[in-house]
Amino acid sequence: MSEQRLTAQMAFLTEADRLKSVNRATTLADGSRSENSAEHSWHVALYALVMGEHAPDGVDTDRVIRMLLLHDLVEIDAGDAPIFGEHDTAALEAREAAAASRLFGLLPDRQGAGLRALWDEFEANETPDARFAKSLDRFHPPNQNLASGGGSWVTYDVAYDTLVARVGSKIAAGAPKLWDWLQPRVAEFFARN
Amino acid sequence: MSEQRLTAQMAFLTEADRLKSVNRATTLADGSRSENSAEHSWHVALYALVMGEHAPDGVDTDRVIRMLLLHDLVEIDAGDAPIFGEHDTAALEAREAAAASRLFGLLPDRQGAGLRALWDEFEANETPDARFAKSLDRFHPPNQNLASGGGSWVTYDVAYDTLVARVGSKIAAGAPKLWDWLQPRVAEFFARN
Repeated sequence: MSEQRLTAQMAFLTEADRLKSVNRATTLADGSRSENSAEHSWHVALYALVMGEHAPDGVDTDRVIRMLLLHDLVEIDAGDAPIFGEHDTAALEAREAAAASRLFGLLPDRQGAGLRALWDEFEANETPDARFAKSLDRFHPPNQNLASGGGSWVTYDVAYDTLVARVGSKIAAGAPKLWDWLQPRVAEFFARN
Repeated sequence: MSEQRLTAQMAFLTEADRLKSVNRATTLADGSRSENSAEHSWHVALYALVMGEHAPDGVDTDRVIRMLLLHDLVEIDAGDAPIFGEHDTAALEAREAAAASRLFGLLPDRQGAGLRALWDEFEANETPDARFAKSLDRFHPPNQNLASGGGSWVTYDVAYDTLVARVGSKIAAGAPKLWDWLQPRVAEFFARN
């Protein structure tokens, strides 16, 4: 029993390795290369560990960390969709749902269903935990871009108003204290560049 | 107050980005390149999330995940020490302790001390949580090597007995069920190669 469970769990964990080969629009803080979705997932989970104290009341930081460890796994099949790119949202959501079924389906039934439910909760962005997790996921790239001197803002020729509408509003929704800290820094960057 | 704390926390989180540029002896599962310590940290935290049920009684999986998110940060200053390489252990420990002081010292005092204590606990390898975390950290590379067809075992010309002594014994100490699963697979690999 334990043997069979472990074999299924290792199949999932070894398949998860492929997330290290999915590249994102954002670069490392030093601008030297694109970051991949596995190292991004680590970094944003570390953000949660450090920034949990700034979450709205009722957020469970450990659940947020678990969500963030899982949140991008679907990109193994569906690819990364850069936030400033143009997407067919319905088609993307269908690809991601199929990816979730395949990947979490590698696990023992009950465990796979539990982790799938956690990913569904993240995607639905309705509970306080999911909203804080989503806000951290949106808070990470601007900080990478500030460190690297522009990053994906330059690649996608992003205007300040677009950034506020697509990113700032979502950070503010789940983590208002983080947006209060970030907003003047971003405004100052765009005023200079 | 919040402004000043957030600025210190972001200095730590942006410095942590450098872990994405520390390469390890282990490769990706497909053998295409070395993995770095940031994506390794993500992967092994995901191992903890999935494998927590196989931990000895009394292990707190969420504390283990937190330890694993932090466990390699000192490599930003001290570098990765491949397990099959030769090291001056005392010098390495001194470099890592200095790195921990510098890195966790970027955070607000009490938070930095708390995370430093968690890293010290991991390194000391005495509590059930630390022993399980260390075992997962040792369990990850053999699985990458099995997937890639040898990996760091080939690079370092490792013999089966050396592997059991340096790695297997440590996995068995904190996660005996995982070693019971892995041991016959590794033995079979070495018998064939």
